[in-house]
Amino acid sequence: MSDYQHILVSEDDDVARITMNRPERRNALSAEHLGELLAAFRAVAGTGARGVVLAGNGPVFSAGHDFADVAERDLDGVRELLELCLELMRTIQHVPQVVIARVHGLATAAGCQLVASCDLAVAAASAGFALPGGKGGWFCHTPAVPVARAVGRKRLMEMALTGDVVDARTAAEWGLVNRIVPDAELDGAVDALLARATRGSRASKAAGKSALYAQLDRPEEEGYRIALEIMASSSQTPAAKEGMAAFLAKRTPVWPD
Amino acid sequence: MSDYQHILVSEDDDVARITMNRPERRNALSAEHLGELLAAFRAVAGTGARGVVLAGNGPVFSAGHDFADVAERDLDGVRELLELCLELMRTIQHVPQVVIARVHGLATAAGCQLVASCDLAVAAASAGFALPGGKGGWFCHTPAVPVARAVGRKRLMEMALTGDVVDARTAAEWGLVNRIVPDAELDGAVDALLARATRGSRASKAAGKSALYAQLDRPEEEGYRIALEIMASSSQTPAAKEGMAAFLAKRTPVWPD
Amino acid sequence: MSDYQHILVSEDDDVARITMNRPERRNALSAEHLGELLAAFRAVAGTGARGVVLAGNGPVFSAGHDFADVAERDLDGVRELLELCLELMRTIQHVPQVVIARVHGLATAAGCQLVASCDLAVAAASAGFALPGGKGGWFCHTPAVPVARAVGRKRLMEMALTGDVVDARTAAEWGLVNRIVPDAELDGAVDALLARATRGSRASKAAGKSALYAQLDRPEEEGYRIALEIMASSSQTPAAKEGMAAFLAKRTPVWPD
Repeated sequence: MSDYQHILVSEDDDVARITMNRPERRNALSAEHLGELLAAFRAVAGTGARGVVLAGNGPVFSAGHDFADVAERDLDGVRELLELCLELMRTIQHVPQVVIARVHGLATAAGCQLVASCDLAVAAASAGFALPGGKGGWFCHTPAVPVARAVGRKRLMEMALTGDVVDARTAAEWGLVNRIVPDAELDGAVDALLARATRGSRASKAAGKSALYAQLDRPEEEGYRIALEIMASSSQTPAAKEGMAAFLAKRTPVWPD
Repeated sequence: MSDYQHILVSEDDDVARITMNRPERRNALSAEHLGELLAAFRAVAGTGARGVVLAGNGPVFSAGHDFADVAERDLDGVRELLELCLELMRTIQHVPQVVIARVHGLATAAGCQLVASCDLAVAAASAGFALPGGKGGWFCHTPAVPVARAVGRKRLMEMALTGDVVDARTAAEWGLVNRIVPDAELDGAVDALLARATRGSRASKAAGKSALYAQLDRPEEEGYRIALEIMASSSQTPAAKEGMAAFLAKRTPVWPD
Repeated sequence: MSDYQHILVSEDDDVARITMNRPERRNALSAEHLGELLAAFRAVAGTGARGVVLAGNGPVFSAGHDFADVAERDLDGVRELLELCLELMRTIQHVPQVVIARVHGLATAAGCQLVASCDLAVAAASAGFALPGGKGGWFCHTPAVPVARAVGRKRLMEMALTGDVVDARTAAEWGLVNRIVPDAELDGAVDALLARATRGSRASKAAGKSALYAQLDRPEEEGYRIALEIMASSSQTPAAKEGMAAFLAKRTPVWPD
């Protein structure tokens, strides 16, 4: 883990913490930074950790893509950068752990996309969220994809077209984050929600998280075709059998994984 | 109707009432219970009732699948059970009547799925909603399908991953239920909303309800292709002609169905 | 512009104003009225305007289709009318300008559909929104398409099945409109939001708006395939290059379009 230049990674009590650590660049997502985040998530996927906290050091959560990196690239170079960014978003959704964003300060453009792509998000009351490309020259096309799927159409249009900062309270009302708390209580609230979200069988939850992302945003019958088959097959797993047996015997389950 | 063992069915004033009546099992959805609910909805579809109230007797609305039933089943057996459950959810959405859930106490797992699958839902202030599989051994894959389509992504993730109970006020804010009322006013509020939702031409509303479910969750242009054709063809029905003629003549319409 | 019989069109300060002007018919959307609205939006698309305000004169915003027009039509005639209406909704979403609805009074049926189809909407506190077909004889199938995509499932069902009027505050909570303001402040609030939504490169925003509608309502990966390609290609535009160069040089950008 000591090979990382742009991020910090630690693990304790079954929770991995991946912290963006380019405060002087407002945690901008250069190719190198994205690559380290992707490597860290891939590494944690193979560990026994049950949850991951994604956080940022410095004044903001993340300012999004690093224009110093983007400006030098031709079309193929930008496409490569965006594919790397997308692979990070996908990986966050497909690691077996529950991933929670710890958002302080601003989360803008691809930084806002990161928040929308984590399974859960807790924000400090002073946090803010923006898709600033809409008031500039490079529209936030890709960040808008997961943000749209969290906040709905009219709110997306407002964020994407104005580029204005949405405050934390509004972001919670719109469904972009799960909780807002006073700034001083941010770490405690992140840990408390993550603890509740990581209870139960680890294998069952990993399959569940993956299936949720597979069935979302599709016609209901398509969603059911995906969910029903895994609901049936997972009923035969040791975890499901233990859960049902413990419930019926009125005893505490012991998860086999 | 007296053949049912697990449910009660009655009809008055054009409203059918289907009540889960396994209070000692917290209205758990065994295969027999699901089969009776499905039979009751299919039977009511052929009657002149304009609305259906789905309720539960005892301390909770419904605790979801009956582990005593599930635990004994192999993969094919569970798949058969889940297909039965899905057929009930589909049938609720496709009967010509407006179906409203009357939710008191807890609605968990497939019980929460039932609430999400009814056209409308009114909850007592003391009601609660949960997808508890996420903190256990058998993840709530299928219940999450309609719940996701009601509450949005981040709220779904919180419910599905934590398994925690969402209170009625929060459920209303998230769009899982249409109304919350003090417990003592639950029946009145259910009947009042159902009365408003069953006005007008019965045939027009039945076609409308069916078309709504067909067009949801699709790209807008696909939704329009479905909706436009039925909007055009339904303009030629006796109900549409009567509605327009009455409006233009400033008289009260007399629905032909 | 003086050829229009049913609408008023003006342009000032880069903002075009298209105003439905059939107050005696409550701005009902006859074929002629729809045709003029469509022509006006097509005309404005080719101008240098950065934004469009869609408003209505008289007691209401719009009462939807004109039954005096519909009642005389056979199936092919109604289909033709609905295709014209749909082409207007599409055009609003695809003109390069940001389109904002200025909603006072009632917006019902296809009038509510217009509000849902504009990029942004600001409502007076006294405004109301309804899909009244559900309590009549001709269900609001097509208006429900964009309304569903703004407010979510259970709220759609309530609007479509009851036909009841949703007040402005509730419409804002549900995401059907972006803002509600006291009636006397409506024009100021519309202009203020539109001014914020029209900052930045005009060409970048036009491409952005179009891509947003293309990626919505699809599985996330499909949305990303659409958004990523345009995000990459738009990085090579003069506007994007100017935006990044200005940011890195800490100077004010000068948009080339």
